[in-house]
Amino acid sequence: MPMTDEHIHPVATGLAKQTVDKHQEKQDIVLWSGWFCPFNQRIWMALEERKIAYHYNEVNPYKKEKHFLDLNPLGLVPTLEIKSKSDGSSKALYESDVLVEYIQDLYPESDEHPSIFPSDTYDKSWTRLNVQHISKKIIPAYFKLQQFQESSDQEKAREELYQGLKTLTDRVKLPFFNGDQFTAVDLSLAPFVRRFYNLVEFRDLDESKVGEKWLKYRENLMNRESLKNTSSEDQYYTEILERYLKNEAQSEVAKATRGGQSLP
Amino acid sequence: MPMTDEHIHPVATGLAKQTVDKHQEKQDIVLWSGWFCPFNQRIWMALEERKIAYHYNEVNPYKKEKHFLDLNPLGLVPTLEIKSKSDGSSKALYESDVLVEYIQDLYPESDEHPSIFPSDTYDKSWTRLNVQHISKKIIPAYFKLQQFQESSDQEKAREELYQGLKTLTDRVKLPFFNGDQFTAVDLSLAPFVRRFYNLVEFRDLDESKVGEKWLKYRENLMNRESLKNTSSEDQYYTEILERYLKNEAQSEVAKATRGGQSLP
Repeated sequence: MPMTDEHIHPVATGLAKQTVDKHQEKQDIVLWSGWFCPFNQRIWMALEERKIAYHYNEVNPYKKEKHFLDLNPLGLVPTLEIKSKSDGSSKALYESDVLVEYIQDLYPESDEHPSIFPSDTYDKSWTRLNVQHISKKIIPAYFKLQQFQESSDQEKAREELYQGLKTLTDRVKLPFFNGDQFTAVDLSLAPFVRRFYNLVEFRDLDESKVGEKWLKYRENLMNRESLKNTSSEDQYYTEILERYLKNEAQSEVAKATRGGQSLP
Repeated sequence: MPMTDEHIHPVATGLAKQTVDKHQEKQDIVLWSGWFCPFNQRIWMALEERKIAYHYNEVNPYKKEKHFLDLNPLGLVPTLEIKSKSDGSSKALYESDVLVEYIQDLYPESDEHPSIFPSDTYDKSWTRLNVQHISKKIIPAYFKLQQFQESSDQEKAREELYQGLKTLTDRVKLPFFNGDQFTAVDLSLAPFVRRFYNLVEFRDLDESKVGEKWLKYRENLMNRESLKNTSSEDQYYTEILERYLKNEAQSEVAKATRGGQSLP
């Protein structure tokens, strides 16, 4: 019998749990979060990278608070709540890549708040273009490989994933996409790379086929503090990813992948 | 017999032709353009709105120049070429929404170069979020309504289009999305609204069903100088749109719509 959604582990574990505990004080910025969601982990990493004060608030996906639904009627994580200092009113934003840009715009670059985009205008646009490459090519292939049940469909998705990773890898300067600076490209991809272990085990993913340079880059991503500090323990991801492998997951992304639709 | 691609009218007409003629001088920024493409018209409008000096270069889609393919191996318009002042070397960017952000970042807001994003950080992100709404909800429905051949499929796409437009309209401040300022939301949508006449004629599109406020907003979009000055004459759009109506078009977007894939 499939695990019902209600049995998903309700909170972050491991190093992610320690990070959650450090962000329980009230702040003007509230991350309405799902510990398990790779899109959510992007904005969480962005907050950590830029050293922004934020209040972490785990959303129980099966018992959503009224205030959360008022903020985002779509009920999706991640949602960022921004509280007004003057009158205490709240505004909301969502869509992980919009949130990452918001976090960048919030403070100018400084030692206190390192930037997650290059300062050069062309390089900033090139970063955005490659974030789109990840969203349009790599992530759909990742979800298809995970959910598709027929081995010929999996084979096609695996090739798509290798090809998407190769295109990106050719552009990587090392140690990170833009060289020394850790940017939006890196944090958009890293949460998915963190979950690749599951595809290695159950979907014959062999990252050596992407090439030596990819293996070096992926190691640098995996060693990044902001990824490690927002990651839960493997066993809890595995529980959830199992539902994707069986094509039983009910997230918006899972439903879109199943129906051959574009990702929401 | 279907019109073959080679018979597409090769250059802009009407007011768009006049704008092309005004931008034949060499400049550091070159728009490699397709006069007929609505995504291309976005970045063309952005250049006009921000009053950026640019060289307009029409790409013949059936005889692409080597220099163009060197810039963008995907061979897609719009592509922006950026020439270095110092050594004459060139870099390229593509993806219409990435290009619109690039044009924004190129010069700070001034009387000489009006901004196409709000200056407030939250409002800027809200603008981006609604550009995504257009890309993810409105445009896929537009292409489906245009290409689908079964009336039940058309009915579903038409409802999707109405729903996407309604969600956006609720957020419109008038006269434009953000009020008086004409922004990236407006220029991302306007080129498609410009082509709606074809869906009104052949796909029972009835925009009054979206509501009075939509009709007011769409009129404001249609009257915008930057839209008019980058628009060719109806008959030339109609020739091309006919191929979409018959589901014979061979653009990347047309192929993705036909195959039930996400738009490239």
